[in-house]
Amino acid sequence: MFKAIVSAETLKTALDSVSVLVDECKIHLNEDGISIRAVDPANVGMVDLSLDATAFESYEADGGLIGVNLTRLEDIAGMADSGQLIELELDEETRKLHIQIDGLEYTLALIDPDSIRQEPDIPDLDLPAEVVIEGKDIDRAVKAADMVSDHIALGVDATDDQFYVQAAGDTDDVHLELDEGDLIDLQSGDAESLFSLDYLKDMNKAIANDGEVTMELGEEFPVKLHFEIAEGNGNVTFMLAPRIQSD
Amino acid sequence: MFKAIVSAETLKTALDSVSVLVDECKIHLNEDGISIRAVDPANVGMVDLSLDATAFESYEADGGLIGVNLTRLEDIAGMADSGQLIELELDEETRKLHIQIDGLEYTLALIDPDSIRQEPDIPDLDLPAEVVIEGKDIDRAVKAADMVSDHIALGVDATDDQFYVQAAGDTDDVHLELDEGDLIDLQSGDAESLFSLDYLKDMNKAIANDGEVTMELGEEFPVKLHFEIAEGNGNVTFMLAPRIQSD
Amino acid sequence: MFKAIVSAETLKTALDSVSVLVDECKIHLNEDGISIRAVDPANVGMVDLSLDATAFESYEADGGLIGVNLTRLEDIAGMADSGQLIELELDEETRKLHIQIDGLEYTLALIDPDSIRQEPDIPDLDLPAEVVIEGKDIDRAVKAADMVSDHIALGVDATDDQFYVQAAGDTDDVHLELDEGDLIDLQSGDAESLFSLDYLKDMNKAIANDGEVTMELGEEFPVKLHFEIAEGNGNVTFMLAPRIQSD
Repeated sequence: MFKAIVSAETLKTALDSVSVLVDECKIHLNEDGISIRAVDPANVGMVDLSLDATAFESYEADGGLIGVNLTRLEDIAGMADSGQLIELELDEETRKLHIQIDGLEYTLALIDPDSIRQEPDIPDLDLPAEVVIEGKDIDRAVKAADMVSDHIALGVDATDDQFYVQAAGDTDDVHLELDEGDLIDLQSGDAESLFSLDYLKDMNKAIANDGEVTMELGEEFPVKLHFEIAEGNGNVTFMLAPRIQSD
Repeated sequence: MFKAIVSAETLKTALDSVSVLVDECKIHLNEDGISIRAVDPANVGMVDLSLDATAFESYEADGGLIGVNLTRLEDIAGMADSGQLIELELDEETRKLHIQIDGLEYTLALIDPDSIRQEPDIPDLDLPAEVVIEGKDIDRAVKAADMVSDHIALGVDATDDQFYVQAAGDTDDVHLELDEGDLIDLQSGDAESLFSLDYLKDMNKAIANDGEVTMELGEEFPVKLHFEIAEGNGNVTFMLAPRIQSD
Repeated sequence: MFKAIVSAETLKTALDSVSVLVDECKIHLNEDGISIRAVDPANVGMVDLSLDATAFESYEADGGLIGVNLTRLEDIAGMADSGQLIELELDEETRKLHIQIDGLEYTLALIDPDSIRQEPDIPDLDLPAEVVIEGKDIDRAVKAADMVSDHIALGVDATDDQFYVQAAGDTDDVHLELDEGDLIDLQSGDAESLFSLDYLKDMNKAIANDGEVTMELGEEFPVKLHFEIAEGNGNVTFMLAPRIQSD
């Protein structure tokens, strides 16, 4: 059983954070909210999303699992204005999701969850550095790095208590340093890892410019990005595997 | 003789309703206003437009007929800001239309009306159901249907006094029901016909979201859409032939 | 030595006026400001730009010359918001330009000035007619002419004291006449020359709609366009060679 009403804005924000990595996903319809875990086909980027029942106008579920075409579900949600409500109801028999937006009913055929890539285990890493940063600073760093390279190094310099971003191109370089004054919070510890910019650009799309993001970093380790959605009634964690630093 | 001054907005709105179906058309320069009738090359969609002399700032004509390249005329009108006036004057000798926008003069070569597809006779059908609906509801229905199918069924259920839209895709369906409370007016009568969505999408482009549209429907009959333009000083009728419902 | 701080808006405006003609240019870092002269590969359009030290928040230079990739420099400037300041500092040893925008540092490799097309001598022509015109009127004329032709004639009719623009297409024509009342100023003298519309369209991109442009014209002579940028702390001159009028 699954029946819920949610604002278009909340649903879109939640789906966006998953659709930047995958086109299809499994959605767990837990009693206390929905959750999604997914990994991209190359096993480089992972997402773990939870959207609590409190993020919904009304919510009833008893633990089912559905498979959805995310692109399609986002298109449907996109038909609603931000202020509008979206009603979702699962028809267990037909395995279809009925989606209502102000009288308009869309019947979405679900995908067999077994046909969708397995959900990843997102490891519990003990990373030495943690940075709390504004979304707009991630946006700036990613866009600037994109002008010169396909890769981006994220690091923390424990000596100077600085978070830094570095991208080295063939002729030009981009460098951004943010100290404790520029950051919301910094737990210092030496860390530097190189990442594929394509993935970080995709993840950046799901991060609000005015939001805050907690970033956990290590030495040649994955980066973890945590942020809240739905006014604190939902959480997103991205994890991105590092590239081997050659040179 | 033809000489007229009209606001850019009015001219653009009028031309839009024809250009969604055809690239060239004949314009009747009647004493009491202009009128255009046109049918698309496949004989599926027709338009009948009248723009009264009262829609113009000034208007003089004595019954001529000109052939115009609509795309070109729209581009010219597009150079004017919404508030600006457009002066039109026919040069009978050279068969050119002089178009002035704030000192800028565009001389448009006309097309021989005989070289343009014949104007359709738009039949006077006696259709059992009539719905008066907001433009934005047509917009929603057309966009939602477009997500799942190339066709759209429009119907009236006389038992429930409901207007409905239905689109059936391979896996997903879209359904919209509007009762008397959702509609501006409803004259009930059983009706359902299937239409090509491409045509309805084109016609929808010419319908203002905040305007109201009168829709006449029958059982496997053409649909007629009427709406006013130019603050009531003009009228557009679209007629769209039905598709044969298979299955 | 070169070290300067300038608003993003001023830098972008200045670069735009050069980048419409060339992708790379030499920048003279004079004591009293920067200057750029450039000509397009076909030797048809030239630009002469000066941006005074007073246009900068701070400015120090001692006469150097650098070669830059304009497209790249514009992309970098484009990362700044209009209100933001851009810091520029030349590293003489590495021949790189350090560009800082609110903590973000971009290191731009410079180009050997000798590898860039030679700077043109912009001739001091004594042209018989001069028109001072609003940027938006150039914009209208160029856009209208572009609908019918690849060429545009600019002229002054000394008898009627009118500036005119004429474009003749295969079937349609565009004509714009502006008399002293429509212009900011007119120094009459017979003049008419035909120009490639592509170049004028590019130059038009660098002209603000609400700015004023001084246009010097002759009989089958180049046209010169002068306008101020950076609130009068900079000047741009475009010169465009005429096309031979065939007909």
